[in-house]
Amino acid sequence: MKAFEWYNPTRIVLGTNSIAQLSKFLPKDSKVLMLYGGGSIKSNGVYESVMQALEGYSVDEFGGIEANPTYETLMKALEVIKSKNIDFLLAVGGGSVIDGTKFLSSAALYTGDNPWDILKKGIRTEVGMPFGTVLTLPATGSEMNSGAVITNKSTSEKLGMGGPGLFPQFSLLNPEVIKSLPKRQLQNGIVDAMTHVLEQYCTYPVGADLQDRIAESILKSLIYQAPKILHEPYDETVASNFMYCCTMALNGQIQKGVPTDWATHMIGHELTSKFDIDHARTLAIVMPQLYRFKFEAKKEKLAQLAERVFDITEGSTEVKATKAIEALEKFYDKIEMPHRLSDYTKGYEDIDQQVKSIFEARNWRGIGERKDINPDDVAKILRMTY
Amino acid sequence: MKAFEWYNPTRIVLGTNSIAQLSKFLPKDSKVLMLYGGGSIKSNGVYESVMQALEGYSVDEFGGIEANPTYETLMKALEVIKSKNIDFLLAVGGGSVIDGTKFLSSAALYTGDNPWDILKKGIRTEVGMPFGTVLTLPATGSEMNSGAVITNKSTSEKLGMGGPGLFPQFSLLNPEVIKSLPKRQLQNGIVDAMTHVLEQYCTYPVGADLQDRIAESILKSLIYQAPKILHEPYDETVASNFMYCCTMALNGQIQKGVPTDWATHMIGHELTSKFDIDHARTLAIVMPQLYRFKFEAKKEKLAQLAERVFDITEGSTEVKATKAIEALEKFYDKIEMPHRLSDYTKGYEDIDQQVKSIFEARNWRGIGERKDINPDDVAKILRMTY
Repeated sequence: MKAFEWYNPTRIVLGTNSIAQLSKFLPKDSKVLMLYGGGSIKSNGVYESVMQALEGYSVDEFGGIEANPTYETLMKALEVIKSKNIDFLLAVGGGSVIDGTKFLSSAALYTGDNPWDILKKGIRTEVGMPFGTVLTLPATGSEMNSGAVITNKSTSEKLGMGGPGLFPQFSLLNPEVIKSLPKRQLQNGIVDAMTHVLEQYCTYPVGADLQDRIAESILKSLIYQAPKILHEPYDETVASNFMYCCTMALNGQIQKGVPTDWATHMIGHELTSKFDIDHARTLAIVMPQLYRFKFEAKKEKLAQLAERVFDITEGSTEVKATKAIEALEKFYDKIEMPHRLSDYTKGYEDIDQQVKSIFEARNWRGIGERKDINPDDVAKILRMTY
Repeated sequence: MKAFEWYNPTRIVLGTNSIAQLSKFLPKDSKVLMLYGGGSIKSNGVYESVMQALEGYSVDEFGGIEANPTYETLMKALEVIKSKNIDFLLAVGGGSVIDGTKFLSSAALYTGDNPWDILKKGIRTEVGMPFGTVLTLPATGSEMNSGAVITNKSTSEKLGMGGPGLFPQFSLLNPEVIKSLPKRQLQNGIVDAMTHVLEQYCTYPVGADLQDRIAESILKSLIYQAPKILHEPYDETVASNFMYCCTMALNGQIQKGVPTDWATHMIGHELTSKFDIDHARTLAIVMPQLYRFKFEAKKEKLAQLAERVFDITEGSTEVKATKAIEALEKFYDKIEMPHRLSDYTKGYEDIDQQVKSIFEARNWRGIGERKDINPDDVAKILRMTY
């Protein structure tokens, strides 16, 4: 196990009554800007619940934060923050709204000329404007971590940012939000959370026994909840477990003391960028093939995954590791998540060379837990996904 | 799963280099009081490491905090805090030193006449004097929670206290502290941490799938590390896993959304009080018999424990549950931890009636997850431990 530092001050409030408790966590004299996305919160009752909980507060609103939130949209919200003297941000939405709010938390207190520099120059946010979240879409884990990804449309860049100032002060998780989510988004949430765990787990063994077991716990719980979430009537306990799994998958805990990969995410981002394929679906396309390509380097952890998560106990390390990749694909099949690039798009034949060029242009010489997947390898992995 | 709120802002720094990083987390102009116990830190090198890391700070010392820290000793430390204008406390020790420091954190800012009222009247500490810890004995989990237990010698009371102001700001965990610990304390640490998990796990099922699996992860990891910790040469990875398990066993996470028991602890405390038996050993004496006594109420979770932790998969719920209790006792045997009251003391024959009277005098009508273990039941459980 590597040495590690673990710090996460976000308060998680999970339960059907969580939104009603909002005023317990929000200072009374706050000037609140409530941020949201495309307006689904107005049809599923969340908007009304939040507004009711905000009674007595000074509240402004900013809607229309898109999936893969853009710098251009967020700069309009920043104007509202400044003109209305906002001092507390409340994200009501999924990962995109929360990520956008993290950018605003940082940008609102940024003293430089150009807030895009926070991302472009990799400026760590030590202190941001305080914010909380009301989560409407379990998937990204953004509700309990300090990272965000923002897209600049004018420069075609999609960059990450973070820092200890970007933990939400609180996140309110009402399992009932599951009820109104379309199947497609639930499938995405399941695969997004699973992939988060695997990016932090499926590398090489370092003897981090407890972290491994907790990662396996989240995977087993997700696999157990998934068919219930997708095919059975709403159940509060199942929905609560699912939300909690998604949060735990990327709150930093299972990452402590272990190597992490994230190559699947880095390649997947380019498929979203080029073909507008949902983020989670790009992960299902890339991950199994990346695991086949890096089989030798990952086979020990893949075999452990087979044994402990998929109950595949027979055979050599290689046999079990191979079966783990197949079990992952069978799981995608079971939840009806297509996982070939050709299931989603046409005209992908030269995407391998396109993405290779992008990685080269960014000077990304190596990605993955050993930084040994080079742009040529990325092209090979992508050809395996066709 | 029950609704829950989870908040834990303590920063955990785990690794052989953790103590050297102290100044990263301690404000430069702090007036520090370093608190410790019987002086073992002066023979194992921890005192020197801490003093070196504190170079440049204003530092006073207070040693001599005893196991089961007493109000009487701590009131002397409080005088030092006041006379020296201390504004940061640094606990260097195990659970007793950390618990004592939590009391001081609260008492230093308490405006009432009598600091014992914090415990006697159950006053929640919203804000305490900031403090950090350097952990020298993995066991209690006090390094990452906001609770403490303090003994008042003059009134023979042992009471708990807590509140959001009592989370350590940071806890530095150097696995090398394991090297100098006597076997007895290592055994105690293993059983203390296991019992913490079981008090929060072995109740009745509420469908908290992820919490259950994480609790099982900690148990499996402890069972795996225990013989290595006790019988093999020092290994940094094993020691790190063991320390992390002890912290995770009582940092609040696995308690969220589930019922909790704690009856074993409440009965065990009286055995420590009457016979001066080590805290962890009283838990090994009480827990298996309490589980036999409450078999019907606990059998579902006991059977789950059997299946998932002890790999006992054959038989009915009752058979598996029975075997889980036996497996727990076999584990105590394996780590050479005696678990009958008669292994530790003589003159225990009327302890059942004595403890019954104590519980009655405190008006404790019922303990355990359903508050249905009455003083008569406590007497029966104790007779089973003879």
